[in-house]
Amino acid sequence: MPNTMTIVCIGAGNVATHLAQALYRAGYTILQIISRTEASAEALARTVNARWTNDPQKTEAADIYLYAVSDSALEEVIRKNPQTNGLHVHTAGSMSLLLFEGVKQRGGVLYPLQTFSKEKPVDFKQVPLFIEASTADDANILKQLGSDISNSVLDATSAQRRQLHLAAVFACNFTNHLFAIANDLLKESGLPFDVLHPLIRETVEKIATLSPREAQTGPAIRKDANVMEKHLLKLSDHPQWQEIYRLLSESIMKK
Amino acid sequence: MPNTMTIVCIGAGNVATHLAQALYRAGYTILQIISRTEASAEALARTVNARWTNDPQKTEAADIYLYAVSDSALEEVIRKNPQTNGLHVHTAGSMSLLLFEGVKQRGGVLYPLQTFSKEKPVDFKQVPLFIEASTADDANILKQLGSDISNSVLDATSAQRRQLHLAAVFACNFTNHLFAIANDLLKESGLPFDVLHPLIRETVEKIATLSPREAQTGPAIRKDANVMEKHLLKLSDHPQWQEIYRLLSESIMKK
Repeated sequence: MPNTMTIVCIGAGNVATHLAQALYRAGYTILQIISRTEASAEALARTVNARWTNDPQKTEAADIYLYAVSDSALEEVIRKNPQTNGLHVHTAGSMSLLLFEGVKQRGGVLYPLQTFSKEKPVDFKQVPLFIEASTADDANILKQLGSDISNSVLDATSAQRRQLHLAAVFACNFTNHLFAIANDLLKESGLPFDVLHPLIRETVEKIATLSPREAQTGPAIRKDANVMEKHLLKLSDHPQWQEIYRLLSESIMKK
Repeated sequence: MPNTMTIVCIGAGNVATHLAQALYRAGYTILQIISRTEASAEALARTVNARWTNDPQKTEAADIYLYAVSDSALEEVIRKNPQTNGLHVHTAGSMSLLLFEGVKQRGGVLYPLQTFSKEKPVDFKQVPLFIEASTADDANILKQLGSDISNSVLDATSAQRRQLHLAAVFACNFTNHLFAIANDLLKESGLPFDVLHPLIRETVEKIATLSPREAQTGPAIRKDANVMEKHLLKLSDHPQWQEIYRLLSESIMKK
């Protein structure tokens, strides 16, 4: 059965791009992309056969308004949307459902727990989607929409979603930054980053069968002061990395 | 051609276990396991058809002595080995080849860049092995031995190996600790850790095609002060995690 719901997407960044494209592929009609950044709006609109504008006043009537903008812009962007009909849905981990109260009649949240970069395709079927809505009817609409693009659609309260987002910052954003530091360290010694790939893959594979506490290895968990002192000395040209090393080692030793 | 080299393994921990078992599977004769921890020595010896002892004075004569002990114990353990014949090889990332000088006639290093837990099998063929030796002949012996158990055998000076080890602590040990924190955060909200698995897998898959700097996402790289303040507030019951959050976010923003 072809899906007849129409969607306006507010935002044209990493999340907006992957989400709009997944919905388009699933048969949804993306009416319009709205973004202050004209080039991004136009580029995304082209890939999902939609119109685009940088003027919120020109927002078209739709069944669903999907907000995928930075948290700091979200409130203002919702207010600037002149349309009050339809279901208004944001995608932010750390923002409450209550954001829509008194502004739009129907509000919901669809939070994709994934890291998105425009340049990297993602298998959206594997992305867990966390759903929240004010009414059971709207929750069902979001569950249907979610299951059209993902195999994993789950309920989460605003409080749970905030915690998911916080955990994701540790497990993904900070992890990636540690990879960046490791990359820079290897570069300094003329070593290519890809020698670390088997280690990084195994670090992740381990936690499929062991808990992260059981999987912990390295000088800190062994309380090997000898190695840690040498490492801190080697980092003396990078005081910030040295401090990260000290703090994370202390945190590992504490457990 | 069956391998006729004999090996004594000093140590019975995570690295010793995986390395001795890989060598045994490749046809090497493991003569003996030596470890202060009798139970570990006996358990490992059983899996590689070797004798075991907790008394270094009883070390048997062998072609290769493989030291896989903590860095802080390494020097003493080498000194306590009464055998001076054969090739003495340590497996420590942060220890120099010079450790053997004046103590044994022939020294070498075989550093496996991987995280090992006894409970988790590892495909040793995928483990990069970094080789160093005092003479070209001994380097060749270690390269042959290395390539019998791994597809990836590389040269590294002591300085490069130290840097590899330091980078590995960031990319693996610290990463795993971030997973542990994420796990604890989810538990507090009654959420299972496995909802993070697709995110963690994607975090790692991204760096196969993007550099870690290009792959960076999250509130810090977006300079989203709104989210970061909320997260810091949520972490106020965990001052150490709060400090980790603050420091890693600052480090991401700096780049």
